[in-house]
Amino acid sequence: MTTNTFYDRIRARTEAICSPLSSEDYVVQVVEFTSPAKWHLGHTTWFFEAFILNKYLDNYREFHPDFAFLFNSYYQTMGERLLRVRRGFMTRPPVEQIYEYRDYVNRHMRKLMDNDHLSDEVRDLIVLGCHHEQQHQELLWTDIKYMLGHQSIFPAYDKTTSLATTYNSETGWLEHPGGVVDIGHKGEEFCYDNELGKHQVYLHPFSISKALVTNGEYIEFIEAGGYKNPDLWLDDGWTWLQTEKISQPMYWHKKGEEWLQYTLKGLLPIDQKAQLCHISQYEASAYAEWKNLRLPTEFEWEAAADELNWGQRWEWTNSAYLPYPFFEKAPGAVGEYNGKFMSNQLVLKGQSVATSDNHSRKTYRNFFKPQMQWQYSGIRLATYLK
Amino acid sequence: MTTNTFYDRIRARTEAICSPLSSEDYVVQVVEFTSPAKWHLGHTTWFFEAFILNKYLDNYREFHPDFAFLFNSYYQTMGERLLRVRRGFMTRPPVEQIYEYRDYVNRHMRKLMDNDHLSDEVRDLIVLGCHHEQQHQELLWTDIKYMLGHQSIFPAYDKTTSLATTYNSETGWLEHPGGVVDIGHKGEEFCYDNELGKHQVYLHPFSISKALVTNGEYIEFIEAGGYKNPDLWLDDGWTWLQTEKISQPMYWHKKGEEWLQYTLKGLLPIDQKAQLCHISQYEASAYAEWKNLRLPTEFEWEAAADELNWGQRWEWTNSAYLPYPFFEKAPGAVGEYNGKFMSNQLVLKGQSVATSDNHSRKTYRNFFKPQMQWQYSGIRLATYLK
Amino acid sequence: MTTNTFYDRIRARTEAICSPLSSEDYVVQVVEFTSPAKWHLGHTTWFFEAFILNKYLDNYREFHPDFAFLFNSYYQTMGERLLRVRRGFMTRPPVEQIYEYRDYVNRHMRKLMDNDHLSDEVRDLIVLGCHHEQQHQELLWTDIKYMLGHQSIFPAYDKTTSLATTYNSETGWLEHPGGVVDIGHKGEEFCYDNELGKHQVYLHPFSISKALVTNGEYIEFIEAGGYKNPDLWLDDGWTWLQTEKISQPMYWHKKGEEWLQYTLKGLLPIDQKAQLCHISQYEASAYAEWKNLRLPTEFEWEAAADELNWGQRWEWTNSAYLPYPFFEKAPGAVGEYNGKFMSNQLVLKGQSVATSDNHSRKTYRNFFKPQMQWQYSGIRLATYLK
Amino acid sequence: MTTNTFYDRIRARTEAICSPLSSEDYVVQVVEFTSPAKWHLGHTTWFFEAFILNKYLDNYREFHPDFAFLFNSYYQTMGERLLRVRRGFMTRPPVEQIYEYRDYVNRHMRKLMDNDHLSDEVRDLIVLGCHHEQQHQELLWTDIKYMLGHQSIFPAYDKTTSLATTYNSETGWLEHPGGVVDIGHKGEEFCYDNELGKHQVYLHPFSISKALVTNGEYIEFIEAGGYKNPDLWLDDGWTWLQTEKISQPMYWHKKGEEWLQYTLKGLLPIDQKAQLCHISQYEASAYAEWKNLRLPTEFEWEAAADELNWGQRWEWTNSAYLPYPFFEKAPGAVGEYNGKFMSNQLVLKGQSVATSDNHSRKTYRNFFKPQMQWQYSGIRLATYLK
Repeated sequence: MTTNTFYDRIRARTEAICSPLSSEDYVVQVVEFTSPAKWHLGHTTWFFEAFILNKYLDNYREFHPDFAFLFNSYYQTMGERLLRVRRGFMTRPPVEQIYEYRDYVNRHMRKLMDNDHLSDEVRDLIVLGCHHEQQHQELLWTDIKYMLGHQSIFPAYDKTTSLATTYNSETGWLEHPGGVVDIGHKGEEFCYDNELGKHQVYLHPFSISKALVTNGEYIEFIEAGGYKNPDLWLDDGWTWLQTEKISQPMYWHKKGEEWLQYTLKGLLPIDQKAQLCHISQYEASAYAEWKNLRLPTEFEWEAAADELNWGQRWEWTNSAYLPYPFFEKAPGAVGEYNGKFMSNQLVLKGQSVATSDNHSRKTYRNFFKPQMQWQYSGIRLATYLK
Repeated sequence: MTTNTFYDRIRARTEAICSPLSSEDYVVQVVEFTSPAKWHLGHTTWFFEAFILNKYLDNYREFHPDFAFLFNSYYQTMGERLLRVRRGFMTRPPVEQIYEYRDYVNRHMRKLMDNDHLSDEVRDLIVLGCHHEQQHQELLWTDIKYMLGHQSIFPAYDKTTSLATTYNSETGWLEHPGGVVDIGHKGEEFCYDNELGKHQVYLHPFSISKALVTNGEYIEFIEAGGYKNPDLWLDDGWTWLQTEKISQPMYWHKKGEEWLQYTLKGLLPIDQKAQLCHISQYEASAYAEWKNLRLPTEFEWEAAADELNWGQRWEWTNSAYLPYPFFEKAPGAVGEYNGKFMSNQLVLKGQSVATSDNHSRKTYRNFFKPQMQWQYSGIRLATYLK
Repeated sequence: MTTNTFYDRIRARTEAICSPLSSEDYVVQVVEFTSPAKWHLGHTTWFFEAFILNKYLDNYREFHPDFAFLFNSYYQTMGERLLRVRRGFMTRPPVEQIYEYRDYVNRHMRKLMDNDHLSDEVRDLIVLGCHHEQQHQELLWTDIKYMLGHQSIFPAYDKTTSLATTYNSETGWLEHPGGVVDIGHKGEEFCYDNELGKHQVYLHPFSISKALVTNGEYIEFIEAGGYKNPDLWLDDGWTWLQTEKISQPMYWHKKGEEWLQYTLKGLLPIDQKAQLCHISQYEASAYAEWKNLRLPTEFEWEAAADELNWGQRWEWTNSAYLPYPFFEKAPGAVGEYNGKFMSNQLVLKGQSVATSDNHSRKTYRNFFKPQMQWQYSGIRLATYLK
Repeated sequence: MTTNTFYDRIRARTEAICSPLSSEDYVVQVVEFTSPAKWHLGHTTWFFEAFILNKYLDNYREFHPDFAFLFNSYYQTMGERLLRVRRGFMTRPPVEQIYEYRDYVNRHMRKLMDNDHLSDEVRDLIVLGCHHEQQHQELLWTDIKYMLGHQSIFPAYDKTTSLATTYNSETGWLEHPGGVVDIGHKGEEFCYDNELGKHQVYLHPFSISKALVTNGEYIEFIEAGGYKNPDLWLDDGWTWLQTEKISQPMYWHKKGEEWLQYTLKGLLPIDQKAQLCHISQYEASAYAEWKNLRLPTEFEWEAAADELNWGQRWEWTNSAYLPYPFFEKAPGAVGEYNGKFMSNQLVLKGQSVATSDNHSRKTYRNFFKPQMQWQYSGIRLATYLK
């Protein structure tokens, strides 16, 4: 696929995700760690303007002098920016103007891309911008779900969406003999800086489940008092349960004897056979402890990935998100992309139904703080072979 | 004016205030003490539905089963309700549906009002509902201003609005001999329960300013270090300054040497001769202290009101909002209207440019916590005659 | 009594109150609004050093250069001071040194007082310092009780202390005809600035209870669901209940079916006939509401005081603590004494078993925020005569 | 050394550390993550009572029925316990009684240990209790320093203590060829559960500094604006700086142009050649970033340890504190010892001047959250060989 085609498809996909939203849905931010759809639309566009058009397209004029302030996310080196907690106050500029901004930037990007002599540096930045936008597409799914799913009347996003229930296609366990394995990205395809640096890791022999934990299995854990037994929980996890009054996965509601679940189709009964979703790493760890098993490391997961079915749920590992050997921050603002988040986060492997397809590679390192539940996250178990 | 006409005018006025808003403007809540325009539209309508139509119109069917939950404000006796802090999350139902709700309730109210034999009890409730809606009209002005004025690009509400600068028409001081005076509401006209109970209060001779404090006078206070001198401030006021990092009235911004002010017309230079606005009682008290004067009591204000020009700014008094002698809570939910707020609040007298005209009576007791700045509040000074 | 004798008695009394304490008991601060006994001992001494010895005793040398910083309470004009919240961190200087400080200042005060030509100004400051220390004696009682009563093993202060149960000596109601009455302090005796300014207040005819509410009466309120019925509570009071999880007066504990109460003698069964104690104004107001009665105003209380038995409990009024007509702040630091606290507080009248005897005068205005429970506070009810 | 002798020495050592304290010093808790000396004395004693005497000494009677509640730290399986934040409120029982408790338990422990047929299980528990107490000895050093060093007058613990300045004895770099190395504890000596499970780790070739960072080197970082440049910091670290207003290591104070440092000897000028101390992992990471170097992993450190001089400062690594392969929680309450803290913490290797000597082994895994500064922590740098 040419860069132009890739760019066009991705830009259009973002807008397709937003198409069922009302103008009011675009603007609200329910909690600081989510962003309004409107902000995602503007921010992904600003990325192309700030890192590419401003520098590489002759005579480019910024669409609006305030937008750099409004749509910078966290790049300290790119100047002042709107506080994250205030993203949901932005009723002006209106959504229509954000769409005009997108069109304006798209037109100028095409002008730049039509140039025959596009340098590798610029091409790499365009590809980075597209992958960046795909990450925000996934956040659009999770943030829209959060915004709708935390309203008291549980409105549906789209009654026909396919982003809902997923099932295991396999059961049983896969054994791996361990030894020194290769980890990390090699080759020419796109990847993020945090995957780079192919290197070696020594693994002890282990066994990993072919199936993810199901809703039914997790209900057993709840009904066995899993949320009430501090022995099963990490100390920080137990504190989190008490402070936030957590007693079930995000979006689960018990009405009488029935378990319901908010989905993008609205509130539905829970399917016991489907894969568990919206689980924190603390919950995943406690569940594993209850089963006398554990979560895999990111290295075990990657070593076994070719023989596993994955792709419906982000899978929590028990690996801290830390730099690979030889990791180097890119110079300048792009260098803020990943490295500075390497503390207090855990790696998730795989992808979810909300992930863009070409984000599917076994070296991908997603990362979140262990209490986060709003991603499409699930549990795969492992154990050592003895 | 008939009840019908009164009802129609007030209902239409609410919608006129909202007419310059975009659909996004309707939904956002920047801070807990304000509410989104959308919520005000729904809540004032729910008041008629819950207190009148449900009880007095035969065969009335509620417009929507969720709306009682969404649009109850604080009436504990009327059942569960949406947490105030969550009012800004409500992207659904959409604004259009709130307008349908208003039309639906209006149609049924007219049906009820067309009945020849409307009881006094129902008529009183309708009038109460209209006055209640007028209070929310004033909150619409202040909450819309807050929502727009706290965005980084300072969008105007309407470049031609008349709610802006006001001036004193008089200067000098009015002397009052004191003695036993009558306070509180008498007569047949509408008033709130907290004004009732005409009673006597003894006043010592005092002098009260005919003019309100101007922007220019207040700038002198700022430039004399008023915000940096703890001697001038109440202890709670000084703590508030430090905690909230306050160094000027709400909506004031200093750009270089120039003082600017956010207004519903957008960001404008401050007019030194205009009346000061958006001031807390703490600031009003500190300013009075700096002038070796004081704020009037609510009783002094009321005793002098017939000889003063008032009506551009709510005027802070130094009277705590407490029950008048013989105050009685109305039975039932309507009794939650005023009495339960009689702690930690101070009385403001008069009215402001944002107040509905027929809310203009000298016995009116407005009340807010002393740190509140977002109302159209100003300063009138007083002193004892010796 | 000469000033010298008065001074000596009061200084000795402070130390007598502390005599049952261990050195560890002197140092701990359980909550910000209380202070450690050690700090009270130092602060009351600093008052004499800072306001009197430094200015009026020739060649006086401060005991220690750090003590002005450590023992200033809130006098902004007296320089930097230890944050209130850090008073409980002060293990050094040791308690012994604070007692040396007291002795040192006492010796120098006697030197000053032995001077035949003591000016009225200095004499007034000494008397003010003594009254100030008596206020801190009362705080010693309440703060020591708080510190011991919030330990898990409920240690007694002194098993033989007389500061415990008190009873009503009268029942029934006193009627007052109302009219213009005199309020405030006159005459030559000591009083605080906030009592000054004898002035007139108009009262409507009222009836006031001769007895305070008893524990038994209050248990009826609890058992009738008083803490669960929002209708009875001020809005701020209800929020306080929910936030702080209050369901009974401070120091009450229910063990099985029995009500117990922490006292300075340790944990004891509650005597139903004794006067209720450690009640907030919110609780007092809710109780009054439940009885269809009200709290008196400070003016009613003062007008009726000569015919009431009072002195066991501070009695909450429903009067906000605001300046009397003609109130003037004293110049300089002493002027910070009372005026700056005139917001968000309510007046309590009378005195309690913890109050020094010569603090007993009907014009005394004690004041606290309405949620405060740790004073020896009780409830006297009133109503209007109709 | 026999178990008896080991026990006696360690118990005596704890009391020796406390000997310079006043009774007031024993009781105060300045911040939740520290504990009062008194609590450490009681808790280490309770450990022997709860886990050994209650179970293994016939007819043992607990010293006091309240002490299990007061001195349990975090063992959820051992019943209710005092909230950590309330440890500093405990003025009763007095310090003297805690010493009586220690004597009582010591006498009974000796009785148990004098028994010829002590089982291995009991002997292991005694050794565990001794090591546990040694960990608390280190916490006594750091918590006493925190308590004294956060008082406004900076009192010394002991003007002659040797726990102060330390220097590097070597400079230069050590190269390591990498490859598969053995990690973790083997052999019969005591170790904690988190060190167990000798296993293999693959290392890439690296170089590690023979010296720790000095005060002088760190001052260069400060003066080059290190605390003002977000590029150098992890995102969480930068947020921590802003929130806590950190601009230098804990206990450092700048007076005019001079850098001072609180030590257990009191406030002293900083020695530029001495080893840096009291540094968070965030600061260590930012410093390493500024030098274009990095912190070692715990595995690199352990692989190089035999050729390094270490033991003055705990050395931050960039390894998350996670279970080793084959890690198993011990059954019962002892199993709460380490495993449940394996989230959001980083490993520190080595030991500090505050560490007990026999805690010196290269497999030891100390762990703290990355913002913690109050341990005797320093910086050793590393880099990959290319």
